[in-house]
Amino acid sequence: MYTVCVRDHLMIAHSFEGAVFGPAQKLHGATYVVDLELRRLELDQDGVVVDIGRASEALRGIISELNYRNLDEEPAFSGNNTTTEFLARVIFDRMLARIRAGALGVSAGDLASMRVTLHESHIAWAAFEKELSTADPP
Amino acid sequence: MYTVCVRDHLMIAHSFEGAVFGPAQKLHGATYVVDLELRRLELDQDGVVVDIGRASEALRGIISELNYRNLDEEPAFSGNNTTTEFLARVIFDRMLARIRAGALGVSAGDLASMRVTLHESHIAWAAFEKELSTADPP
Amino acid sequence: MYTVCVRDHLMIAHSFEGAVFGPAQKLHGATYVVDLELRRLELDQDGVVVDIGRASEALRGIISELNYRNLDEEPAFSGNNTTTEFLARVIFDRMLARIRAGALGVSAGDLASMRVTLHESHIAWAAFEKELSTADPP
Amino acid sequence: MYTVCVRDHLMIAHSFEGAVFGPAQKLHGATYVVDLELRRLELDQDGVVVDIGRASEALRGIISELNYRNLDEEPAFSGNNTTTEFLARVIFDRMLARIRAGALGVSAGDLASMRVTLHESHIAWAAFEKELSTADPP
Amino acid sequence: MYTVCVRDHLMIAHSFEGAVFGPAQKLHGATYVVDLELRRLELDQDGVVVDIGRASEALRGIISELNYRNLDEEPAFSGNNTTTEFLARVIFDRMLARIRAGALGVSAGDLASMRVTLHESHIAWAAFEKELSTADPP
Amino acid sequence: MYTVCVRDHLMIAHSFEGAVFGPAQKLHGATYVVDLELRRLELDQDGVVVDIGRASEALRGIISELNYRNLDEEPAFSGNNTTTEFLARVIFDRMLARIRAGALGVSAGDLASMRVTLHESHIAWAAFEKELSTADPP
Repeated sequence: MYTVCVRDHLMIAHSFEGAVFGPAQKLHGATYVVDLELRRLELDQDGVVVDIGRASEALRGIISELNYRNLDEEPAFSGNNTTTEFLARVIFDRMLARIRAGALGVSAGDLASMRVTLHESHIAWAAFEKELSTADPP
Repeated sequence: MYTVCVRDHLMIAHSFEGAVFGPAQKLHGATYVVDLELRRLELDQDGVVVDIGRASEALRGIISELNYRNLDEEPAFSGNNTTTEFLARVIFDRMLARIRAGALGVSAGDLASMRVTLHESHIAWAAFEKELSTADPP
Repeated sequence: MYTVCVRDHLMIAHSFEGAVFGPAQKLHGATYVVDLELRRLELDQDGVVVDIGRASEALRGIISELNYRNLDEEPAFSGNNTTTEFLARVIFDRMLARIRAGALGVSAGDLASMRVTLHESHIAWAAFEKELSTADPP
Repeated sequence: MYTVCVRDHLMIAHSFEGAVFGPAQKLHGATYVVDLELRRLELDQDGVVVDIGRASEALRGIISELNYRNLDEEPAFSGNNTTTEFLARVIFDRMLARIRAGALGVSAGDLASMRVTLHESHIAWAAFEKELSTADPP
Repeated sequence: MYTVCVRDHLMIAHSFEGAVFGPAQKLHGATYVVDLELRRLELDQDGVVVDIGRASEALRGIISELNYRNLDEEPAFSGNNTTTEFLARVIFDRMLARIRAGALGVSAGDLASMRVTLHESHIAWAAFEKELSTADPP
Repeated sequence: MYTVCVRDHLMIAHSFEGAVFGPAQKLHGATYVVDLELRRLELDQDGVVVDIGRASEALRGIISELNYRNLDEEPAFSGNNTTTEFLARVIFDRMLARIRAGALGVSAGDLASMRVTLHESHIAWAAFEKELSTADPP
């Protein structure tokens, strides 16, 4: 199995609901350093998993939808705590939609799995990963 | 699959038995930077894998049992080389016992797997990971 | 010259005023990984620059005054952009006040200089540093 | 499952064929920081996955075959783009051959899997991993 | 004194002349992770040392003049070994010229000093730094 | 001013005397990741500050005198707490002696300054640095 990973980051404000979050129930913020990993059984004819230029560009596009925002005011996240885990899933789902729409090229159609990791500090991170199937709807 | 990770560290002395260890057969020591990863199929109602505050606290508790010690004198490790691999397993087992005892809350009962990684330098690390089952004894 | 450094982090929300900030004029946030460096010409009788336990505790105290906040609502910063550079200076000044008040012990009175660095992402950081003098008011 | 990892690096020149590579079609180069991970179900009688001294030495041997070279002139890679993914596989295959030849000792015969990761910058890496079987030819 | 730092990277091929370089006399290559540090005594009216967006853009412009090249064929470096130290100086000089030409804005005219660091691997880096003077020619 | 830096590491056991050290008064240990920085006003005729191969080799020689030891039993450190700061100075002094003895070549005679940094964990490090003079005894 081959993997490629590209890294970018976003900076957002948000607050959490629930006593478990303690002081993080107040409006605060985070820098998330994002690692996007794409896995595939075989390399394509160019010798790559995907074009990392296109993967970086697609990731940048998703980040631009979230970056420099107060996530508490985003209708898409209404009723959810935008935890690191939750945001890893959001970026995963949005990247999958872009892949299905062809953003990484035709050969990205047979990617085996994808993983999105968000580093929230030097001592904590969260990730979401799932196997991909050409049969699955995005 | 979701993963969360928290990081801490410990500083210990020890020596190894066996010609394979060369100069490390002498009493020396190490800083281990510890990454604790917890995995779960779904997020709980707060939108997290586990409360990372409680996970950090539990990890800190285990580290305090080992930190600033000469592991050669710990009865629990008698007859074993306290290698990086071995210590990753020790911390794994002790964390599992704490999870089973409720240290991470009720919802941690259905964690899918756990991984403990010990970084011993900028060029070497070791890890132990295992799937968890509610049926398995700790 | 000897230096010691301890690291911690904080997570805040804020916005900036001024066209130069582009999209960062909107309410967003950041994780700042903070490095506190203390410098001294000679070691004290224990063989250290300062007790890093006390230095970490003092830094943690300052961070707790800022952490999990919306800095736009902090009266202390009214009329200022709480940029990374600015916050490095804030933490520097507050640490100096604590040092002058004895938080790091008597021997910290002859520290030669201090530097506070805030890493805002994997690709950007800012710092403030200044020589210290026993004659200078904090 | 236990894992150990050792790190080294190599510095090479190469060029790529294919419009997808854009400016990287020109002769350029890279530093690859290489992580070699070895996995095994149980520790050996010394309490390790493998002797990391021998693992480091074997990795160093493979790197010396590639280091400080223009990979465009290596007959072994003729007709291939020596992408990060491709080189991860090359190092994997050469390490497997060394393991089969006994370079890591007899107990390395039952390694469960191996992973080779090449970090090409602070924002991109690629890896190749595969389960190992004593029945498989190298 | 305030400092801001932005990071980027470049990938080049080159060879060295001189027995001291051993195997690095052959054509090989490197990834250089570049840190650009800018220092100033006071913040400008926006509360920053310089606009890091513009600083990143200027650095990116310089990198694009060098990236994906065989430096042995660059007339500008003829007769020089393009060592990490040498390239740190090249990027320093080109950034200074851009600053003098106004690329970072008017307030960058009173920057106190600049430092360029090139990380060539996880175990080696080189830097060039110099105080800046409004009187000095670039 | 030019700087080059090379990195290596050592693993030792030790204990500290003094109530300030708390639990670190017990025998424990540490991994120290060591950064050796050498500074010079001009590059030599090869275009380098020093041959980093020779610098790495000299650092490795000093580390081999300390590595895999219980520093409490080293006569050279009798009566001293072998703190991170203290050990940074020890490595500095031993490197200076090697430089004076010609280990880095003749041109290292006019190095402007040297800095030794020891990282003891992901959240703490210490360093010693001093300007060098050809007139000073080592």
